[in-house]
Amino acid sequence: MIRISGADAIPLVQRVFRGGDIQGSRGYRAHHGWIVDGSEPIDEVVLTVFRTPHSYTGEDVVEITCHGGVFLGQRIVELLVGQGARPAQPGEFTQRAFLSGRMDLCQAEAVADLVQARTEASRKVAAYQLEGRLSERLRNMREQLVKACSLLEIELDFSEEDVAFTSRTELIAMLKAMKTEIESIVSSFDRGRVCREGIRVVIVGRPNVGKSSVLNCLVERERAIVTEVPGTTRDTVEDVLDIGGLLFVVTDTAGIRESEDVVERIGVQKARQALSAADLVLLIFDGSEALTDEDEAIVHTMREMGKREIGVINKVDLRVKADMKRIKAWLPGAPLARVSALKQEGFPELIQKIEEIVLADGIPHAGEVVLTRVRHRDSLSKAKAAIERAEDSLKMGMSQEFVVVDLREALDSLGEITGETITDDILNRIFSEFCIGK
Amino acid sequence: MIRISGADAIPLVQRVFRGGDIQGSRGYRAHHGWIVDGSEPIDEVVLTVFRTPHSYTGEDVVEITCHGGVFLGQRIVELLVGQGARPAQPGEFTQRAFLSGRMDLCQAEAVADLVQARTEASRKVAAYQLEGRLSERLRNMREQLVKACSLLEIELDFSEEDVAFTSRTELIAMLKAMKTEIESIVSSFDRGRVCREGIRVVIVGRPNVGKSSVLNCLVERERAIVTEVPGTTRDTVEDVLDIGGLLFVVTDTAGIRESEDVVERIGVQKARQALSAADLVLLIFDGSEALTDEDEAIVHTMREMGKREIGVINKVDLRVKADMKRIKAWLPGAPLARVSALKQEGFPELIQKIEEIVLADGIPHAGEVVLTRVRHRDSLSKAKAAIERAEDSLKMGMSQEFVVVDLREALDSLGEITGETITDDILNRIFSEFCIGK
Repeated sequence: MIRISGADAIPLVQRVFRGGDIQGSRGYRAHHGWIVDGSEPIDEVVLTVFRTPHSYTGEDVVEITCHGGVFLGQRIVELLVGQGARPAQPGEFTQRAFLSGRMDLCQAEAVADLVQARTEASRKVAAYQLEGRLSERLRNMREQLVKACSLLEIELDFSEEDVAFTSRTELIAMLKAMKTEIESIVSSFDRGRVCREGIRVVIVGRPNVGKSSVLNCLVERERAIVTEVPGTTRDTVEDVLDIGGLLFVVTDTAGIRESEDVVERIGVQKARQALSAADLVLLIFDGSEALTDEDEAIVHTMREMGKREIGVINKVDLRVKADMKRIKAWLPGAPLARVSALKQEGFPELIQKIEEIVLADGIPHAGEVVLTRVRHRDSLSKAKAAIERAEDSLKMGMSQEFVVVDLREALDSLGEITGETITDDILNRIFSEFCIGK
Repeated sequence: MIRISGADAIPLVQRVFRGGDIQGSRGYRAHHGWIVDGSEPIDEVVLTVFRTPHSYTGEDVVEITCHGGVFLGQRIVELLVGQGARPAQPGEFTQRAFLSGRMDLCQAEAVADLVQARTEASRKVAAYQLEGRLSERLRNMREQLVKACSLLEIELDFSEEDVAFTSRTELIAMLKAMKTEIESIVSSFDRGRVCREGIRVVIVGRPNVGKSSVLNCLVERERAIVTEVPGTTRDTVEDVLDIGGLLFVVTDTAGIRESEDVVERIGVQKARQALSAADLVLLIFDGSEALTDEDEAIVHTMREMGKREIGVINKVDLRVKADMKRIKAWLPGAPLARVSALKQEGFPELIQKIEEIVLADGIPHAGEVVLTRVRHRDSLSKAKAAIERAEDSLKMGMSQEFVVVDLREALDSLGEITGETITDDILNRIFSEFCIGK
């Protein structure tokens, strides 16, 4: 499907369409006919016409459903470009929708997230954000802040009369409530981030305990559901799986160069980076051998980082020689799983333990507001700080202008999320991450 | 875009659509709303509703324009399948369009050709065929044949009265005209086939004359325009280029295993196969060396096959030692091109010579009827043979039943092309070559 948007979209397409008058189309109407290049018939198509402002971009839009295929699509695009159209920039349709007020900025971001979603969890949080629940909460807060600011500013205008249009107590209560609301939204960020980006799982263990085999068994079991998104840069030592609708990005540190020395090995910067970014660590032991100093060194280095972890005892098809009590003592409170990568046994149980430890947080349900982007969390945190400063000023009985400055800053911070207050640079960066055609 | 077709399409989509009543939609209407899974919002979409018989398939059709992306698309498809829809077979939408009489079989084949078109020439012949010019010619011929048959059959019914409802002279004249028409259509097959499938060019020459370098220079110059169609099996020694809108499939016989012995070498079966299928042969010589017995042996073997050819003298950046007169004598009437693959010189001229020799036939123009498929040519040839037999019977004054049998056979043969008379096996084979979703 080829989409053309802009004030000239309808007359432009009319010039290459043989199949009736679309300039008289009322909008939300489909038209059957041929795209032609002069007398040359190009393809039989259905056009759908949308009239401003009732379209995706808010402008006049024509969508051409052609028969498809790479060459045919290019041929039609070139024909339209010859008529004065111009190829869209990545995300330009959505950017125009934003600029014409059809959606706010966090809804526009949700469009990109929806298209890139690879699991049900990432699709969910994007759809909720596109629905506009977060936008609505932010709008309500902004309205309250705008109202408070204007009242305080009127007081300033009448400052010589020393009147107060707002009750300081009520104002403080309102700001307190808003702070609580912001905190509750910010607290959803960890769940939202994990839904949108996936859980980073890192597999560690000394050489030959079977790290790669464990990963292969996990992937083989779950990979079918996960689709590769073209253009996603995939590290060679990373693999993705879908467990319970959540994306798991698994890094096998066996793929990371290991040095000879035990402490050095786990200290290798790449492994450390992977570990520090991990949401969950799978610590693999060789059950068929006695535990070694290397095992212990890895356990200690890993535990210093305070990550959620699961101990995985591999090779349980052989006689178990590893001291299970010692492993339990090393990993207090962590679930333990016994598997055999060779016989492909124990993996349903391991996956269940992963689900218990990770999905305990819960995937958001319809209607729930969850934060998914660092950008949003940072703006909310800035807004909260400004509100706290305003609250303090009020409590200390400071003059209105001090309070208003902080409330305006809170307003601006909230507006960054929905795009009311945002620089062109940030806007361009956000839309450049879109695919072409969206 | 997701397309649902069938009597239940509209109520089925209605069950997962939040955005208004589409069951009351008049058809050719777009509807904005959300696809929902119970209370779970899945994606914001535009639906376009088509009412039987005014749709692609002729059935009720709903097209869902969602935000796209692999997972989201799958999620919506799964939701629809959960509601009772079933994934379409390859080509099933077009097959249904054919079965409901929305298009005939050669138009349906044109849809597949359009989607697979990789050059302007292949797109053109597919679009003309989809427009229905060939169908119209065939329909006219069939109508004349049906009329002649019925008149002859009426005569049979009244055979005791010995009346003649048709003038034998007129009948013979009609059949003669039809035969001429069929011949003219069949004669377009070579051009049509070349437009649809491309020109098969084979590069031959003894070792080290620079066959692969010549191919690389050609491809480098022209490749940009040609797109790879996924799923096309590509031989490793083949490359495709677009010259003047026509697809060239170039086989470099250097990639074909060559034996030690000169005659054996050109005799290698694969090279022979490539040569026998060639539409054009590029015969490469090393201009910097004297001609050898090998050159001569290759020229002779190649010329026995009677192919169109161009002599290409490579390495003309070096001092020319090859006897040009001898080459001219070897290849009487063939164009000669001097190139340097090393310096990338002479290739525009070589391409021009290729164009002159191949495009002299001309790419069809709008409105022209050209045959593109062996299947069509074979059916037309069968029809022609039957018409000739009918003509002979008439001339010999034979009884009506003999004539009718042949005319019916001609009718059936023409009907194979448009699909009026065709077995399910052939139908299934034709549609199984389509992509899914068409």
